[in-house]
Amino acid sequence: MFKLISRDNNARVGVLTTAHGEIQTPCFMPVGTQATVKTLSTQDLLDANIQIVLCNAYHLYLRPGVEIIKQAGGLHKFMNWNKPILTDSGGYQIFSLADLMKVKEEGVSFQSHLDGAKHFLSPEDVIKLQADFGSDIIMPLDECIPYPSEKDRARQAMELTVRWAKRSKDAFKAHSPELTAHGYLLFGIVQGSTYPDLRVECAKRLIEIDFDGYALGGISVGEPTDLMYEIIEKTIEHLPQDKPRYLMGVGTPLDMVEAVSRGVDMFDCVVPTRNGRNGTAFTWKGKLNIRGASFAKDFAPIDENCQCFTCQNHTRAYIRHLFNTDEILGLRLVSLHNLFFYSEFMVKLRKSVAQAKTGEFEKAISEYYE
Amino acid sequence: MFKLISRDNNARVGVLTTAHGEIQTPCFMPVGTQATVKTLSTQDLLDANIQIVLCNAYHLYLRPGVEIIKQAGGLHKFMNWNKPILTDSGGYQIFSLADLMKVKEEGVSFQSHLDGAKHFLSPEDVIKLQADFGSDIIMPLDECIPYPSEKDRARQAMELTVRWAKRSKDAFKAHSPELTAHGYLLFGIVQGSTYPDLRVECAKRLIEIDFDGYALGGISVGEPTDLMYEIIEKTIEHLPQDKPRYLMGVGTPLDMVEAVSRGVDMFDCVVPTRNGRNGTAFTWKGKLNIRGASFAKDFAPIDENCQCFTCQNHTRAYIRHLFNTDEILGLRLVSLHNLFFYSEFMVKLRKSVAQAKTGEFEKAISEYYE
Repeated sequence: MFKLISRDNNARVGVLTTAHGEIQTPCFMPVGTQATVKTLSTQDLLDANIQIVLCNAYHLYLRPGVEIIKQAGGLHKFMNWNKPILTDSGGYQIFSLADLMKVKEEGVSFQSHLDGAKHFLSPEDVIKLQADFGSDIIMPLDECIPYPSEKDRARQAMELTVRWAKRSKDAFKAHSPELTAHGYLLFGIVQGSTYPDLRVECAKRLIEIDFDGYALGGISVGEPTDLMYEIIEKTIEHLPQDKPRYLMGVGTPLDMVEAVSRGVDMFDCVVPTRNGRNGTAFTWKGKLNIRGASFAKDFAPIDENCQCFTCQNHTRAYIRHLFNTDEILGLRLVSLHNLFFYSEFMVKLRKSVAQAKTGEFEKAISEYYE
Repeated sequence: MFKLISRDNNARVGVLTTAHGEIQTPCFMPVGTQATVKTLSTQDLLDANIQIVLCNAYHLYLRPGVEIIKQAGGLHKFMNWNKPILTDSGGYQIFSLADLMKVKEEGVSFQSHLDGAKHFLSPEDVIKLQADFGSDIIMPLDECIPYPSEKDRARQAMELTVRWAKRSKDAFKAHSPELTAHGYLLFGIVQGSTYPDLRVECAKRLIEIDFDGYALGGISVGEPTDLMYEIIEKTIEHLPQDKPRYLMGVGTPLDMVEAVSRGVDMFDCVVPTRNGRNGTAFTWKGKLNIRGASFAKDFAPIDENCQCFTCQNHTRAYIRHLFNTDEILGLRLVSLHNLFFYSEFMVKLRKSVAQAKTGEFEKAISEYYE
């Protein structure tokens, strides 16, 4: 269930209720592909005020496999995380990582990128998989095509995505009332590449099927920023106000505030954690790479005003030393800081929307981020 | 200052007072070579009940260098660890890691193993270095020779070690009263390879110089276990009761209990952390390697009775999955468990000694460890 709290033009503040609790939106979901957000414990995630984690059905299907996760009592128990989990269907990974991938009407056959073993997954399989995981938010299998793609190809993939979405909804309903009664949610994924008319058509057809939320897939895959914003705008115009909108794979601070001002509610991205492992820290005055020689004798924290564990306990000079000597603790300290920053960012963004000051927040962010 | 609390034959329980607080002995010091115990934060070390950390003067001299640590306000502030620190002089590392190493009476010249830069360190330099770090326990530069070594070579190295020890003590005193008045301690290092008479002679000559504690160096470097125990016994016989004895680079659970029963009070070793990063966990029923296929569906903690963060929060199946997927969190979880186990091990060992049951504890450990 999604409850809209306030609006500032197209920007929204809301609360999404899931089987494992409420999520304040707009929200950011860190990526825990393999049932772990890289370098961090679930206690670290709580310390960073993370509300919901994204895991990947394709990766977890291959390792450790659904049987082990089921026997553990579900994904939450397996990874010891009691707040909401969204699982990506793995469509994107199958299309980008797997070998000898073959799309048929029935589903997709592929070889594991790990050991070459042959697999076949139908849209129904992918729903069952995530239901077995106990994911709070389930994503259906979709066909992901590269950017750029010809319009004919994009239409073909969109049409298949819609047919698979219908089958996914039916499979999800077949699990009812166990799933829906307990607040488990199924989102639809809008595809259509860079063609606004295909996006709009896809959105309308998904709305007819009726999902608990709508994701925008295949965005931020290399297209120009203006085109990305245009697709978001034109698609969201046709999405219902009473359902959350999730922009997959985005983003940077500026992309997120721009998307929120266009009506997006949810994000996931590897940016804060991948950057963290690379020594790049996010601050309210832009990014800084802690490996820089200028930090060698800098005994201030990454961000003077930050209340995160890293900034409360360690200096730039020490963290630089950890990166300089290839010590794993460094990766963790900057990843933790970045997730804390992303949570703070979302708190301030929600406050800005509630106070009808989204534009001012956007302006402040664009001073330091591009 | 070292206070003996109780004895069980040669085994001792005591309290060593340092500038940063008391240490209950026998104690284990995890290795934080580069001002970080690999994969762990200093908060993790507190959670694992660690009393004192060992850092390495040679490594810290090269990176980040003494100036940065001084400017940070000392090593404790640099790494955010407020309990005692012992720094190894780096003698062992200079003799094993550095290139083009040349020993002269004056000191040792070498090239950095990192960038080939030329360096020279005298025994006085090494004391000043550690004094600048603010180390609670300072170790003098010694000449470390390989095992096996001819007796002539061993005598030569022992003699030089003694002459350097005298110069180190003088350098340490030159810093007084700043250092000694604040509880900073200087240990002597007994060398002499596998020759008991050389060890005894070295011990006696170091005692004449008078140190705050006595370390046994160049042990556990490949010699047979019986010979190791013999050297420990014959050396310790000549060491004063009112000073702590530190067996460098040891050890495994069994080696530690055997050494304690021979009068050793302090240990450092990479075993718990290196094994942790390799997936090997210590338990009261021996070691287990969490990567084993038998743990794939094992939803018990590493050790059912363990109160550590890892065992309170995560299953064997999950930790195995982390190792299986090369996720960094796995290294940390097992390292943390192992240090907690080592702390518990020392608590039980101290209790056994206090209750005059060291032999029983030794027997219990030898059932599961060799």
